[in-house]
Amino acid sequence: MKLDKATIEELVVRPGKPAALDARSTASIKVDWLGATKAKKRKELAEEDLRGFVDELEASQERLWANGTHALLVVLQAMDAAGKDGTIKHVMSGVNPQGCDVTAFKQPSAEELGHDFLWRAAKALPARGRIAIFNRSYYEEVLVVRVHPELLARGGPLPGKGLAKNVWQDRYEDINAFERHLHRNGTRVVKIFLHVSKEEQKRRFLDRLDDPAKYWKFSAADLAERGHWDDYMAAYEQALTATSSAWAPWYVVPADHKYTLRALVGGIVVHSINEMDLPAPRLAPEGLETLARAKKELLAE
Amino acid sequence: MKLDKATIEELVVRPGKPAALDARSTASIKVDWLGATKAKKRKELAEEDLRGFVDELEASQERLWANGTHALLVVLQAMDAAGKDGTIKHVMSGVNPQGCDVTAFKQPSAEELGHDFLWRAAKALPARGRIAIFNRSYYEEVLVVRVHPELLARGGPLPGKGLAKNVWQDRYEDINAFERHLHRNGTRVVKIFLHVSKEEQKRRFLDRLDDPAKYWKFSAADLAERGHWDDYMAAYEQALTATSSAWAPWYVVPADHKYTLRALVGGIVVHSINEMDLPAPRLAPEGLETLARAKKELLAE
Repeated sequence: MKLDKATIEELVVRPGKPAALDARSTASIKVDWLGATKAKKRKELAEEDLRGFVDELEASQERLWANGTHALLVVLQAMDAAGKDGTIKHVMSGVNPQGCDVTAFKQPSAEELGHDFLWRAAKALPARGRIAIFNRSYYEEVLVVRVHPELLARGGPLPGKGLAKNVWQDRYEDINAFERHLHRNGTRVVKIFLHVSKEEQKRRFLDRLDDPAKYWKFSAADLAERGHWDDYMAAYEQALTATSSAWAPWYVVPADHKYTLRALVGGIVVHSINEMDLPAPRLAPEGLETLARAKKELLAE
Repeated sequence: MKLDKATIEELVVRPGKPAALDARSTASIKVDWLGATKAKKRKELAEEDLRGFVDELEASQERLWANGTHALLVVLQAMDAAGKDGTIKHVMSGVNPQGCDVTAFKQPSAEELGHDFLWRAAKALPARGRIAIFNRSYYEEVLVVRVHPELLARGGPLPGKGLAKNVWQDRYEDINAFERHLHRNGTRVVKIFLHVSKEEQKRRFLDRLDDPAKYWKFSAADLAERGHWDDYMAAYEQALTATSSAWAPWYVVPADHKYTLRALVGGIVVHSINEMDLPAPRLAPEGLETLARAKKELLAE
């Protein structure tokens, strides 16, 4: 039973309503895969759904590209080990890489810190016809920077003009305006929070520490950040509540089971492109005549 | 008699008030150079003022650079032949080019049209410590594009979500939010409209047609745009009225006399940096000790 629109829309943080992360499951969705009885079975059904979405996504991307009028921006945010990289790999596997760019936003460079906090994201925006995936994003500026305010970029607001009420409220407002501007100019913005539990993160960190093939994935810094878990959850709760909008919704996706996570993210991406309501590429009658002439010419060679 | 703050502030379009371009002189300012009696004399006084501002600007830019916390963006907009290029050349002549970038926004490229209308401007924003001059800017998107709406970029708003009230109002709103974001992040945005009369433009065009050394400056396209003079004035009137804000004011500078124009632009730029209220670079006591040790070490060599 394929994930339907209603199931996907249940994951949205309604604009103006609290994100209520505490109340949301990190393990399953309300309407789970129907017909499944055991964990094994659910996994199989979810994987089948994912394969369906990957196929659909291939066709959707071609339509996006052929039209060349609109773009899709997918923002992925999560705690460490929630599954961002694996999700990108599995969900986007069928997509033509010529029409899709993934940008991972790591610690900002000196040049990036020298500009406003949206600058490096603005440079990486997708052109019409393309998909961009942000693996972390400008939201780090109201997440990790909120948990560690000493990271606030140098400079800050100018004196006078009575603008700075509160740096975080200002940033939410700036982000909302930025995303609204993108929407108005033809880019669909979709934001996905991979909602993992603290217990599941522990299990995945231990996996990395126990398996030599996974050692490289472990970083002591990640463990230090785990120590700020509650602060991060509070920062996510506020950020998602303040920035889920009609034009750029936040989806909260349970991430404790990778198969659920991946099927849902696949569903969200396909759903988002379908919502753009792009026409299938069609030629005007003159175009068809040109094709006919070209065919004739080639055959006459 | 040097131009004072009050004289400069009279040029500002008050936020929320009409720009009232019709009512503003293209030739002189209310409080003209005191003590001047004839045109010759005014010119001399204005040139003296400009030299003073150029010197001040050199020192101001050094303070901006040494602090490295804030930036200045100067947006210049005007009809053809109003004097943008000459103003940049004369006003910015004393500035260290290492800390100042001029970007001329011409017809957008295919890559630029592929993005939202603020994208190419965002890429050219000044880093902390620097000055950027935009010779034309994202305002062309509500000026030339408004006069020739067939230039509206492909794509446009996405279906649904009830956002598009009016493409121009949307663009004004997006521009205001963009500039407020820059202000909050440490960039002072100053916008200057070079207000030239239709008669003076005619005289300057004829100059270009009569002097072989100036032939290259003339373009038939400029003459065609002159045919839309009233439409341009209406577009400027609306844009300046809608986007002059506490955080990014518009200045209307009479441009029929180049000496007035240049002195005023020099005054506006110096005034804008002074308003940032940047501290003179100072070393902490430890820094002074480091200097003393370095000096001792060098002398002991």
